[in-house]
Amino acid sequence: MGIVLGDNRYGKAETRVVRIVRDSPRHEIRDRNVSTALRGDFVDAHQTGDQAHVLPTDSQKNTVFAYAQEHGGEAAEDYAVTVADRLLEASPYATSAQVRVEEYTWDRIAVGGSEAGHDHSFVRRGTETRTCVVTVEGRGSYRRLHVLSGLADLTVLKSTGSEFQGFLKDRYTTLAEADDRVLATSLTAWWRWRSQFSTGATDGPDWDASYDSVKALLLETFATTYSRALQETLLLMGQAVLRAHPDLAEIRFSAPNKHHFVVDLAAFGMDNPGEVFHADDRPYGLIEAQVRRDDVGDEAVAWRDVPGFC
Amino acid sequence: MGIVLGDNRYGKAETRVVRIVRDSPRHEIRDRNVSTALRGDFVDAHQTGDQAHVLPTDSQKNTVFAYAQEHGGEAAEDYAVTVADRLLEASPYATSAQVRVEEYTWDRIAVGGSEAGHDHSFVRRGTETRTCVVTVEGRGSYRRLHVLSGLADLTVLKSTGSEFQGFLKDRYTTLAEADDRVLATSLTAWWRWRSQFSTGATDGPDWDASYDSVKALLLETFATTYSRALQETLLLMGQAVLRAHPDLAEIRFSAPNKHHFVVDLAAFGMDNPGEVFHADDRPYGLIEAQVRRDDVGDEAVAWRDVPGFC
Amino acid sequence: MGIVLGDNRYGKAETRVVRIVRDSPRHEIRDRNVSTALRGDFVDAHQTGDQAHVLPTDSQKNTVFAYAQEHGGEAAEDYAVTVADRLLEASPYATSAQVRVEEYTWDRIAVGGSEAGHDHSFVRRGTETRTCVVTVEGRGSYRRLHVLSGLADLTVLKSTGSEFQGFLKDRYTTLAEADDRVLATSLTAWWRWRSQFSTGATDGPDWDASYDSVKALLLETFATTYSRALQETLLLMGQAVLRAHPDLAEIRFSAPNKHHFVVDLAAFGMDNPGEVFHADDRPYGLIEAQVRRDDVGDEAVAWRDVPGFC
Amino acid sequence: MGIVLGDNRYGKAETRVVRIVRDSPRHEIRDRNVSTALRGDFVDAHQTGDQAHVLPTDSQKNTVFAYAQEHGGEAAEDYAVTVADRLLEASPYATSAQVRVEEYTWDRIAVGGSEAGHDHSFVRRGTETRTCVVTVEGRGSYRRLHVLSGLADLTVLKSTGSEFQGFLKDRYTTLAEADDRVLATSLTAWWRWRSQFSTGATDGPDWDASYDSVKALLLETFATTYSRALQETLLLMGQAVLRAHPDLAEIRFSAPNKHHFVVDLAAFGMDNPGEVFHADDRPYGLIEAQVRRDDVGDEAVAWRDVPGFC
Repeated sequence: MGIVLGDNRYGKAETRVVRIVRDSPRHEIRDRNVSTALRGDFVDAHQTGDQAHVLPTDSQKNTVFAYAQEHGGEAAEDYAVTVADRLLEASPYATSAQVRVEEYTWDRIAVGGSEAGHDHSFVRRGTETRTCVVTVEGRGSYRRLHVLSGLADLTVLKSTGSEFQGFLKDRYTTLAEADDRVLATSLTAWWRWRSQFSTGATDGPDWDASYDSVKALLLETFATTYSRALQETLLLMGQAVLRAHPDLAEIRFSAPNKHHFVVDLAAFGMDNPGEVFHADDRPYGLIEAQVRRDDVGDEAVAWRDVPGFC
Repeated sequence: MGIVLGDNRYGKAETRVVRIVRDSPRHEIRDRNVSTALRGDFVDAHQTGDQAHVLPTDSQKNTVFAYAQEHGGEAAEDYAVTVADRLLEASPYATSAQVRVEEYTWDRIAVGGSEAGHDHSFVRRGTETRTCVVTVEGRGSYRRLHVLSGLADLTVLKSTGSEFQGFLKDRYTTLAEADDRVLATSLTAWWRWRSQFSTGATDGPDWDASYDSVKALLLETFATTYSRALQETLLLMGQAVLRAHPDLAEIRFSAPNKHHFVVDLAAFGMDNPGEVFHADDRPYGLIEAQVRRDDVGDEAVAWRDVPGFC
Repeated sequence: MGIVLGDNRYGKAETRVVRIVRDSPRHEIRDRNVSTALRGDFVDAHQTGDQAHVLPTDSQKNTVFAYAQEHGGEAAEDYAVTVADRLLEASPYATSAQVRVEEYTWDRIAVGGSEAGHDHSFVRRGTETRTCVVTVEGRGSYRRLHVLSGLADLTVLKSTGSEFQGFLKDRYTTLAEADDRVLATSLTAWWRWRSQFSTGATDGPDWDASYDSVKALLLETFATTYSRALQETLLLMGQAVLRAHPDLAEIRFSAPNKHHFVVDLAAFGMDNPGEVFHADDRPYGLIEAQVRRDDVGDEAVAWRDVPGFC
Repeated sequence: MGIVLGDNRYGKAETRVVRIVRDSPRHEIRDRNVSTALRGDFVDAHQTGDQAHVLPTDSQKNTVFAYAQEHGGEAAEDYAVTVADRLLEASPYATSAQVRVEEYTWDRIAVGGSEAGHDHSFVRRGTETRTCVVTVEGRGSYRRLHVLSGLADLTVLKSTGSEFQGFLKDRYTTLAEADDRVLATSLTAWWRWRSQFSTGATDGPDWDASYDSVKALLLETFATTYSRALQETLLLMGQAVLRAHPDLAEIRFSAPNKHHFVVDLAAFGMDNPGEVFHADDRPYGLIEAQVRRDDVGDEAVAWRDVPGFC
């Protein structure tokens, strides 16, 4: 019996790179937080301290910046693919590279009533963070590409059209049934692209347009469907996305149920028909679910090291 | 020589109250974080432990909730005034009450291409937090009202139209002059209302409309003026607001200079003409300035306990 | 081809329960953040909105509190097992329950030079958070128990005795070799117990003593071994723990390399022989590794939904 | 009537400087977050964009690092004084300089049962942050020095020996009287040194020893005195400090009352005699108080821009 090194990976997390596209006076901005990680044969680094196989995380950071020059104006997914491929080229002992991107959105500042907005002045939008995780395994003809796109912290609320009743009760159940409640969550979602779109960056879909479409479907489904539970709403949201996007294999959700408790004002002689709520911080319900096509495989590697629901 | 109690205050911080206005099927939402504080004769509570003068902070919290029923649908400033007056009514030993509100903005979810948005489903906007601090001193004919309105964390960026040069140099100065740089800040601003508008909630201005106007002026001035330093930009922003709003006595800014450093790509044989930046977290410049009319007094009490620039 | 519900789970996250053991005047305190999650047959909740299989997360919270009465004074692992078993008892449609605990440590306040510390007054220690994840699958003779113990945010630093050189170089490598550097990390570690100790709470090891021992081994190994890379140090730490603790099957680490950069003071005519450092926030290296016995299986279910390295 | 620039200041916030003292094999570590700010004649920077009076914040950062070489091994207060004096020397248009330090404490890692701990390996303590704010006004014979020392986030809890009753009641009061409760707070305190100790760094007290003494007095008083309210406890703590430290003029506290609510287990047929608590996040009571000698003046400038209670 021995003690051995198991799975391992390393990389540079949270390089904050901002790319200004200034090919014309009307600038574009891409504001990203980029994390890279390599898996492969790094046994010596652990066992003998020999770093000959190890491309420094500092070099990975430099790569993130250098590739932002040529590719940083592209969609996050395309940019991430170029970085991942380059890291595998630079590190012959790596067998896979993962590049994770969080992207922050900026709007043009409105000026003079014009709808176009200012050419080079921006205000950060703040609603949600757009994300992607690109994993490249192998090189050349053995290369496989996995792409997850997603969003984090999309905070939504319904002030009616939600109930929670008919649930299982045990001796510790004190919750009252609710036929009209506030439903609020801060949604994190990941959708996985089918592999036929994963053969190369140039063959890819219009990531930006698909992001806007998925987000709109999530929001509209949340808004327009009655909710008997957050679980039901998540499934409906997932179905709406997969129906509209045949290129997607599955979508996964992590959704904290951000409780809004009706405040009891009876002691003060007041009614409270669903008007005054206490928005509590902790604890919160946490609902996680996957929605998928029944004809696609698992591709666990696409989800490796993805924080949250895996 | 003795050791004595000096200034003191107490209250309930960060009551998270959400008010749904459901008088019609088209709901409104007011999502707030409310903090109250009382000053007055609370010497016994400190010296002998006698609590007879002390209205519990729990009762202050209950007041925040109860008053949300009748007034929570009003503008934050109006609601805060009613809470402050009530706390002074309930606590005869208090000489002043301060109510601070942070308000989070929600947009209606877009559905079916309609511009109106959904009746009862919302997505949190996230750009900035709207704030106010209302201080009431005294009661009846001795009552004085001070109102600050403001915003926090309005994050803006100019990708050109900003320089920083001609500065003082000492032996520790290594910074290069910059004739074209990225300027970014996460703005916190407070504007103080003249006292003639402070005589009562019912006489007040349209707080919501004035908030939108001040925010638009701040954004538009930031966008459309050339910046030789963040200091110059803040003064221009303040002047624009005070010129347009004769009811305001002064405005104060706290603005971190969120550094975006041009990444040196020369080692990789690449130019970087203001395209690839590293957005650094710390340290950051911190610029704070007041802009005021020269014919108004100080009203220090309005700014008492306001975090940041005071 | 259809669109189907995949894996799912739900529970109550972050119930903050504090248990004071006051059987004698010398109180004990157990300060915990408890999260529960159930997996099982919850298809109807998603597909039809029927909640008959769903034990509310509110009931799970109540269970966390109620079981703190009888078991909250025990070690986190023992307490978590009782909660998990109870949830499976209460929820016949659940197939597994996971209970996650973060525990915050308090020291007795020193008084009058006594080493014993005060009987009922405490100061929070703050160094690291103790953690555990208990997963129970099945019931009765089909019951299987998986236990992870761990710690988070144990921040350590070596001011010498660390190098990083001989690494792989590519065209984007600018990092200088370092033969004496500061090595700092904020360690998160999880160690998995062999299954023979997982048959029941009463048969378990002394969790508190083993925690202290593992933590001491991690610290002492970090302190007393020369580091040619953080990878080498992690493997040494893991080996030390597994050698001393035959009951443990494996240990996993996630370790951000918190960079301390030597500040270049040459422009000011000053040397800086490893004395003045800039502690940078982002980006950071992120090193993750598993150390395991070669005769134990994977038990993936023990690691399911564990955030970070999985 | 005109619109004019009012008070203003600028500086570099949160420079993270770590100083390793390696004069012997037994290293020392000083881990600090340093913020600087200048006030003075910076009107042109605001009005015309002329930066000739402005020492860049980047130069202030360089000064923080360069002075860490010679003075960074000294107590935070001494180091801060040298930085403030240097900034006034470098910036002739500045009239005052403020240097704020947050210091994080590291313990030596225990090895081999020795009490001495390791020579160059450390673990971060985490209990509280040590702080100081040094303000220098003027130069040479007009120079005045103000020193605040302090601590932040010292989290303490009493599991008994605390009550809250006999308080004022109004129509919104529902809180029950408590004759035995948990009292917990996360203390921030600032103590101001008398001016006779403020004439220069070399004449100063032993800042490190006084810090340890003040902290011990705060803790011991909290532990050993019965509490009829957090207000009473704060006054007792302040009195204990001022009695033992004649060099101090005053001490100020900001203390959130971190509520621990007894969980009602009666619905489950269980008693809960002060054993199981819910530690709530928000809202929280917030108690702020000053304790001072009656023969010292105000020295408002010492407290200028100090966040929190001012």
